Amino acid sequence: MIVTLLTDFGDADGFVGAMRGVILGRAPEARLVDIAHHVPRGDVAKAARVLERAAPWYPSGTVHCVVVDPGVGSTRRAIVATAGDQLFVAPDNGVLDLALDACGGVRQTRVIAHPDLRVGPLSSTFHGRDLFAPTAAALAAGFDLRQVGPPVDDAVRLPVSLVRLDGARLFGTVREVDTFGNLITDLPPGDVPGTGPITVELAGRHFEGPAPTYSAVPSGDLVLVVGSQSTLEVAIRDGSAADRLGVTAGTACTAWRHDPQSGR
Amino acid sequence: MIVTLLTDFGDADGFVGAMRGVILGRAPEARLVDIAHHVPRGDVAKAARVLERAAPWYPSGTVHCVVVDPGVGSTRRAIVATAGDQLFVAPDNGVLDLALDACGGVRQTRVIAHPDLRVGPLSSTFHGRDLFAPTAAALAAGFDLRQVGPPVDDAVRLPVSLVRLDGARLFGTVREVDTFGNLITDLPPGDVPGTGPITVELAGRHFEGPAPTYSAVPSGDLVLVVGSQSTLEVAIRDGSAADRLGVTAGTACTAWRHDPQSGR
Amino acid sequence: MIVTLLTDFGDADGFVGAMRGVILGRAPEARLVDIAHHVPRGDVAKAARVLERAAPWYPSGTVHCVVVDPGVGSTRRAIVATAGDQLFVAPDNGVLDLALDACGGVRQTRVIAHPDLRVGPLSSTFHGRDLFAPTAAALAAGFDLRQVGPPVDDAVRLPVSLVRLDGARLFGTVREVDTFGNLITDLPPGDVPGTGPITVELAGRHFEGPAPTYSAVPSGDLVLVVGSQSTLEVAIRDGSAADRLGVTAGTACTAWRHDPQSGR
Repeated sequence: MIVTLLTDFGDADGFVGAMRGVILGRAPEARLVDIAHHVPRGDVAKAARVLERAAPWYPSGTVHCVVVDPGVGSTRRAIVATAGDQLFVAPDNGVLDLALDACGGVRQTRVIAHPDLRVGPLSSTFHGRDLFAPTAAALAAGFDLRQVGPPVDDAVRLPVSLVRLDGARLFGTVREVDTFGNLITDLPPGDVPGTGPITVELAGRHFEGPAPTYSAVPSGDLVLVVGSQSTLEVAIRDGSAADRLGVTAGTACTAWRHDPQSGR
Repeated sequence: MIVTLLTDFGDADGFVGAMRGVILGRAPEARLVDIAHHVPRGDVAKAARVLERAAPWYPSGTVHCVVVDPGVGSTRRAIVATAGDQLFVAPDNGVLDLALDACGGVRQTRVIAHPDLRVGPLSSTFHGRDLFAPTAAALAAGFDLRQVGPPVDDAVRLPVSLVRLDGARLFGTVREVDTFGNLITDLPPGDVPGTGPITVELAGRHFEGPAPTYSAVPSGDLVLVVGSQSTLEVAIRDGSAADRLGVTAGTACTAWRHDPQSGR
Repeated sequence: MIVTLLTDFGDADGFVGAMRGVILGRAPEARLVDIAHHVPRGDVAKAARVLERAAPWYPSGTVHCVVVDPGVGSTRRAIVATAGDQLFVAPDNGVLDLALDACGGVRQTRVIAHPDLRVGPLSSTFHGRDLFAPTAAALAAGFDLRQVGPPVDDAVRLPVSLVRLDGARLFGTVREVDTFGNLITDLPPGDVPGTGPITVELAGRHFEGPAPTYSAVPSGDLVLVVGSQSTLEVAIRDGSAADRLGVTAGTACTAWRHDPQSGR
């Protein structure tokens, strides 16, 4: 059974190494796979995007173990959720929301409560090792989902800013900045009314496109493309648009078409 | 059979990729697991802490291959050690000490001498590929431990600064700074005499606690907690205490209780 | 079947996590192994060196999936190549050249054209997920190489600067700077004519050696050694020669012997 790991623990301290040991100690047949470990510390919204990007590609029965957990040690709950035929283990902070939607919608959510789903007494600071890893291992080894804990219907939701259409203009935000400094918006080009080229306004600048590829412009130039999750993206060929424009996730942006009157 | 890897090679050059190839070429059934690869270059003390954090969680028979080896190419020995039912392969520089203790104490140590435990002639600079990987692979494939080489009883020891009780005060050091800049001391709260809150003095400042969790304080505030290996830890919620205080591993610290007179 | 991954995607966004999911969804028995993911963005020459370092150690049948692809979305082709008993999947940009040579020389190269070798319509920006991962998965699952696409004999070649002997002097370049800042030249010490110590001239400075090991000099000193791929390398013990000397890959260097007159 596949168990994926997604954390903000980096690769210098052995925190993920300890989690892997806990899982293999309890589910010797588990196949460990990494989603990412250098998510910015405590950045739940970014982690949600990363999981959304990766989880839908995994086969049925995969257990995703997510530990981006700025509230560790507080009273925040720990949950198991299911969507499609995949299972997700995480703190109850909204980090699963986008992936659950992308995997067909949440089917059930339970609080992790069973005493077997932990390693010794919980520490204040490392529930990845003490709680999430043993829960993921147990699920991978066939632990009955109904025994995990009581169902909940009030899981914490990730704050989302929705795309909004106002006349001919589509208003949205930069949902994510990736490692390369590409600015990934939440604007699907197909939702911009009209026909013809699209203009995106972002950080006081205008970008026309979309170009078919990053390499449609000379090295160092800004370019508007359709990114790998089918939304508009502002990039610099061979450079960082985030650095150049000083833009971070959450920045507002707007898109409109050259000819907004025509139908789609 | 599980083979873990712990190095300071990072993830840009393919040094670990080469080691993985050597292991899989010689032990096709080995299951490779990463402990960490971004240990600061040549930092044997840090690597020892990382291994101590992770190794005890692994199942019996695991082979841990550790290559943090500032003395590569010199006359330093290469060793295999055992503790509990786990095996450890490393340069003889003390990097295994803490993990061996945490896994129940060293049972035997041997110098790697058998000619089958290397790939071609040793290079001057990459014994991870030439010596440690093939040795780990051989052990995972059932190579007889007694054939590795002669036993040694004078393995190099990691320099350690012991915790010392003087009157009501417990004196120790910052044993490790983690990726988040948390200052992990070697002071177990239970060893501080008396009752009541604990004060830790560190870098000329006083910290009271321990708080139950990082999130007991507002974002950006310093907080004293009990870390995941049950020692006192100074942290900043959502920030780096190491950066803020200018503290590195090895810095002295002291702890005492509000009411040191009472028994424990 | 082993599938290795080599990318410049880093570990923060889940791009590699998505690729792993695609592969495991299509080749459930694949064993995923990482070569490296922090190759500098778009640095094809560096990636070629990394793959050359690692690939030759892998067992027969390994599929290497390489995505360092600054031309993603353009008309550059995608290829499968074979050398020895290993398979390589990559953009047609020369990234495979050094590894193919190191694995015994390219045997055949085909353009990826079969419609089953992709996941949905190709995005403009993420062929790692859409094209290279499904192709690697298919090959690992036994897809017939002849069905991949038509053979090509004009694959893009990596620009290489050859070592050149002029009188008693061997002229070459710094082929790679590694994570530690070591300057790895393309000068094999055995190709420098004559006998006696070697002098390397690099960035206006002279280095004598080779020393038997990095630790032959005091910490912080520059040292000339023979690196792990048997060429001359300029390093600083416990420091970065690249930073100290301001040298990057491609810098010219020259080597000669103390006594160039004598035969070899």
